[in-house]
Amino acid sequence: MTAVTQRVYNFSPGPATLPLPALQEAQRDLLCLPGVGASILEISHRSKTFEAIIQAAEENIRKLLNIPAHYHVLFLQGGARLQFGMIPMNFLRGTGRPADFIVTGSWGASALKEAQTQGPVRILWDGKAEGYRRTPRADEYQINSDAAYVHFTSNETIEGVEFFREPETGDIPLVCDASSDFLSRPIPIERYALLYAGAQKNAGPAGVTIVIIREDMVQRCPNDLPSMLNYRKHAEAKSLLNTPPCFAVYMVKLVTDWLLRDIGGLEQMYAINRRKADLLYRVLDESGGYYRGHANPECRSLMNVTFRLPNEALEKKFLSEAEKAGFMHLEGHRSVGGCRASIYNAMPIEGVQALCEFMKDFREKNPA
Amino acid sequence: MTAVTQRVYNFSPGPATLPLPALQEAQRDLLCLPGVGASILEISHRSKTFEAIIQAAEENIRKLLNIPAHYHVLFLQGGARLQFGMIPMNFLRGTGRPADFIVTGSWGASALKEAQTQGPVRILWDGKAEGYRRTPRADEYQINSDAAYVHFTSNETIEGVEFFREPETGDIPLVCDASSDFLSRPIPIERYALLYAGAQKNAGPAGVTIVIIREDMVQRCPNDLPSMLNYRKHAEAKSLLNTPPCFAVYMVKLVTDWLLRDIGGLEQMYAINRRKADLLYRVLDESGGYYRGHANPECRSLMNVTFRLPNEALEKKFLSEAEKAGFMHLEGHRSVGGCRASIYNAMPIEGVQALCEFMKDFREKNPA
Repeated sequence: MTAVTQRVYNFSPGPATLPLPALQEAQRDLLCLPGVGASILEISHRSKTFEAIIQAAEENIRKLLNIPAHYHVLFLQGGARLQFGMIPMNFLRGTGRPADFIVTGSWGASALKEAQTQGPVRILWDGKAEGYRRTPRADEYQINSDAAYVHFTSNETIEGVEFFREPETGDIPLVCDASSDFLSRPIPIERYALLYAGAQKNAGPAGVTIVIIREDMVQRCPNDLPSMLNYRKHAEAKSLLNTPPCFAVYMVKLVTDWLLRDIGGLEQMYAINRRKADLLYRVLDESGGYYRGHANPECRSLMNVTFRLPNEALEKKFLSEAEKAGFMHLEGHRSVGGCRASIYNAMPIEGVQALCEFMKDFREKNPA
Repeated sequence: MTAVTQRVYNFSPGPATLPLPALQEAQRDLLCLPGVGASILEISHRSKTFEAIIQAAEENIRKLLNIPAHYHVLFLQGGARLQFGMIPMNFLRGTGRPADFIVTGSWGASALKEAQTQGPVRILWDGKAEGYRRTPRADEYQINSDAAYVHFTSNETIEGVEFFREPETGDIPLVCDASSDFLSRPIPIERYALLYAGAQKNAGPAGVTIVIIREDMVQRCPNDLPSMLNYRKHAEAKSLLNTPPCFAVYMVKLVTDWLLRDIGGLEQMYAINRRKADLLYRVLDESGGYYRGHANPECRSLMNVTFRLPNEALEKKFLSEAEKAGFMHLEGHRSVGGCRASIYNAMPIEGVQALCEFMKDFREKNPA
């Protein structure tokens, strides 16, 4: 059995570090779930055991986000990228209305591109010309009364830009890709018509996508889609239309158990996440311009801290020495370069503190 | 740590029993992959570690099935049921040709129904009137020269009916749902244009779908689909278009490692599977009509042995006593009732032998 002490600090943007108690429980029971005599990997999705697991995962998410009864919580497959296609297939195609996008980074741009395969889209605001450094102010865009929906990305993983207030869309359905800040803080779920998140940042491993969708949206799904692409079919079957990704759902249950039991809920998680991000951004701000944060301060992500060093040679040295010191995966996304520390829920504050010390030390030893 | 000795014989139709060495390796390394310092659940799909894992899984499958270079092996999500939709979205919709179906059971009927959302379909042969007890003889159906493709289901999990020779379709692309006999025996892959299989029977856990697709099919995929629904996009990205279900792919690697290393390949696996099925069908055939097999003898599945007892009261008693004796999940599919023993690759021959003894004993103690 590999020891806990061999684990490094993993700043990967996702799949990302998971809470140790969740991993340990999964490891303990991997050959046999208690009282079942078989692995979670081997049991029928129609068994009472698995039904209890998926119901518990749903209940945990409902409790954490205080989700009203007229919302469905679905466990789907295909990642956020399949949602980029499914949402316009269900709610854009054939409606005669365009879908409106607020684009604050690379993922929002991808979502928009995929939607274009299904119908007309409009860009309400696009941060590209500014290098995706911020979210828009409310007076910088206008909601169109004929929009099918408004889509935004609550946290842009690549650029490290986060919304801390939802866009005001009135009666127009608000749709959100929350993949990288889902379950990191409380949100007013009633503001959303549909919110989706790949699990592999804060909620579990890769392989399951959580969709929270309001009942009236479910009722709008067209009948001419294959059933796996129709939210209504998934809602009617309570995510058991076909064999779900059972192990990934089980891990979501264990991770949300940890959030409720060990952390105490999303208010507490949010406080911890703010504290971790504050520590790291302070190192940037107090570095005399040595570490340059990418995002504008008021839009800085609590999840993905993106920064540059004075030059690429120093960045390369920084990443290499960090890795040797046990701080893994601090490289920025291949599309933008630089550095990025992803500090999701499961990254312990000790990991962030140790990284802060390393960064201060590196700066002293490697002047620009 | 739960002990190996607590494991039962699990005859579940899928998710199904997995090879113990694969489970044990996954358990050992669940906190830290050797030399990585993080769990397989936590590492980036763009990391060298994961790239080596997904490449090894692909290489194993290529070796086991002797797959030529002009076929792609893809790891997708959504199960066979998403394939039921994706195949006609890519190869039926907009072609002006109908898709032809050979329907030998419930899954083939579902595949046909989903295809109808995308274009015209024709039924070449349908076993429904006979209760889905057999595959058709070659002279019972005719291939249409204008078909977009011909779809069949190599093994019907619910009814226990299996094809042991591919339908002859000439130049018409042959498409196969091989979910429940994939990797159970050698097949002539050159006969197929596209073959797909949910992993959760013989290849791994739920959450990954393996698609083997010929290069000329990939080139036919239309451009107006969301990328996750386009085989060409997946092939170009080598299954890394977005975050794949990393853990499920890892388990496929471990299961196919076992097939190659411990079993010796598909010829050997096929011999073992024939032996297991023979043992069980002999109990049926030598029971004087007490256990009545569902499928016609020449079409009996080597994977799913479906049978009835003299009456429902005895079936209920049989299932209840079997469970107490540690033979789990012998109930038939909720849509057809009766009994079913699923004896996929990972079911050891000892499990089948023990079940045979139990069945003979039950019959003696419980005359009709």
